[in-house]
Amino acid sequence: MSDILLKKMFSGDRLALSRLISMVENRSGDLVALMAQVQERCGQAHRIGITGPPGAGKSTLVDRLIAQFRQAGKRVGVIAIDPSSPFTGGAVLGDRIRMQDHASDEGVFIRSLGSRGSHGGLSRATREVSKLFDAFGFEVILIETVGVGQTELDIMELVDTTLVILTPESGDTIQTMKAGILEIADIFVVNKADRDGADRMQAELTVMLEIGRTHEQAWTVPVLATQAFHNIGVRELGEALTAHFAFIRKQGVNQAKRGLLFRSEVAEILSDEIKSQVHQWLETVQFDRNHNPYLVAQQALKEAPWLLQHASSRPSTPRRKSPSRSSSAPTRKKSRKR
Amino acid sequence: MSDILLKKMFSGDRLALSRLISMVENRSGDLVALMAQVQERCGQAHRIGITGPPGAGKSTLVDRLIAQFRQAGKRVGVIAIDPSSPFTGGAVLGDRIRMQDHASDEGVFIRSLGSRGSHGGLSRATREVSKLFDAFGFEVILIETVGVGQTELDIMELVDTTLVILTPESGDTIQTMKAGILEIADIFVVNKADRDGADRMQAELTVMLEIGRTHEQAWTVPVLATQAFHNIGVRELGEALTAHFAFIRKQGVNQAKRGLLFRSEVAEILSDEIKSQVHQWLETVQFDRNHNPYLVAQQALKEAPWLLQHASSRPSTPRRKSPSRSSSAPTRKKSRKR
Repeated sequence: MSDILLKKMFSGDRLALSRLISMVENRSGDLVALMAQVQERCGQAHRIGITGPPGAGKSTLVDRLIAQFRQAGKRVGVIAIDPSSPFTGGAVLGDRIRMQDHASDEGVFIRSLGSRGSHGGLSRATREVSKLFDAFGFEVILIETVGVGQTELDIMELVDTTLVILTPESGDTIQTMKAGILEIADIFVVNKADRDGADRMQAELTVMLEIGRTHEQAWTVPVLATQAFHNIGVRELGEALTAHFAFIRKQGVNQAKRGLLFRSEVAEILSDEIKSQVHQWLETVQFDRNHNPYLVAQQALKEAPWLLQHASSRPSTPRRKSPSRSSSAPTRKKSRKR
Repeated sequence: MSDILLKKMFSGDRLALSRLISMVENRSGDLVALMAQVQERCGQAHRIGITGPPGAGKSTLVDRLIAQFRQAGKRVGVIAIDPSSPFTGGAVLGDRIRMQDHASDEGVFIRSLGSRGSHGGLSRATREVSKLFDAFGFEVILIETVGVGQTELDIMELVDTTLVILTPESGDTIQTMKAGILEIADIFVVNKADRDGADRMQAELTVMLEIGRTHEQAWTVPVLATQAFHNIGVRELGEALTAHFAFIRKQGVNQAKRGLLFRSEVAEILSDEIKSQVHQWLETVQFDRNHNPYLVAQQALKEAPWLLQHASSRPSTPRRKSPSRSSSAPTRKKSRKR
């Protein structure tokens, strides 16, 4: 069934795209095989991560950016990350408001992803939905998150350009900001720039960036001022985003970093897959009274070949590594040394 | 080496405890074997989770609770979860202030755990440090988190009693609170109760809890008022915490829930272990140019028996499940049916 959906999606069927996103969210079907096909069509989109503290005006700015990119003839996919925190709720609301503005536009697709229930799988879901958008043909993918917790930092690793939005009121926040935020930002925006302290904020940020700058950095992080509500400064922001994308395209990704990212992606896919197999396996197991989860885990690890065989539903006799390889299969370093 | 450390820790050596906590944080050594021994000494401590929005006065209240429990002759371990968000920083500072108050008290041990760098392993680290505290002999373990994101909700699954702290100013927040927060709280506290709206807040919460109450719930969630800064209401809170612990001890944990928690704990231990093995394995692998991480993962899964053998450093011939079992080993349901 997923092959038919994929074919439909590749031909531009939005409903098929929507259903595939749901499969990714619910982790149903053979997602590894599915995503392997999606991957083949990826690599064209400009993925932009947008983050900042609650109240910075992210939703309004995202709304303006959508309009901006649409005017430039680009199709836009939006992933709104809803951290589902009972103390910060509201992302979904903002999302709905935007939905109304762009609901009739075939060139825009907006989807919320919630963390509640996904148990740490949010960055994987975001990565996969982003790939679905890319394969579908969206030229721009906007990924909006609230705050910069670990989940958000993980997500920012997936994008080409990271945009951090602050307001003049974030001044106190900056004092307590740790290095992380300066490191991840490719572009800073001081939104609500008509308010007091905006100029000072912009100047302070620029100085902090100058101090933290290393020789290797060929990209100078711009600090822009916007008034998203009044649609001021949005054009310049759009240009800066496009400039950054052109910059990284031209420069090419650092090979070492690329290898690291690739390894971490493979690790994440494998770990998630094995994790779900472990859960399935646990369903079939009965435990003795003497509960010590670490002893149970230790025992299961000792029986690992059996565990994995069970998980991959293969015959009960374990098989050695096959000598035949597909073009993309991993090769042990050892055997490469000859 | 870890065996010597364990022995020292069991005999009350705080330095050994501190070093074992570092091992758990850094995931060094054979933690599954180590924790299996720690587990055998666990089960006496009252684990209390404390959460609420930033600014609710959690740190001050934790400080007062430590003093309260110390007066009652109980030793207290504290785990302060620092979400390391550049936008919310400050947990570490609060922690340091408390450290000064109780630094000379041998009956108190405070440790911060950060999420930055732990890549989703924060709830496992918290669980394991909590077990180390339990095995060390702390009668009370306070686990303080900021906010209620997914990580915090995961952590609240580890504790016996969940305390949610709000302020009169959280009024608006409550309107947007999702069901989650009402479900996880065993005790509510309205702190800064001398401020306007505290009575109303207390009344509203009580009504909400009454409406949401199900027949199965034998515990009535109290809504207490405190002024942590002035040390008002803290004694009553301490009594409520102790009452809840006595209640769950008497009632016993629901067997079905216990089984679920046990399974999820085994799954977490196994998944984390396999995940780190996958990372080790990836270090030894060379990839071809034609990068498709899903194809690489797919291939690795097909070769899973080999992968796991490699990971567990055992001879290259796979072994079938051994017929001999330890007392705590898992048994397949199938073979139990006879």
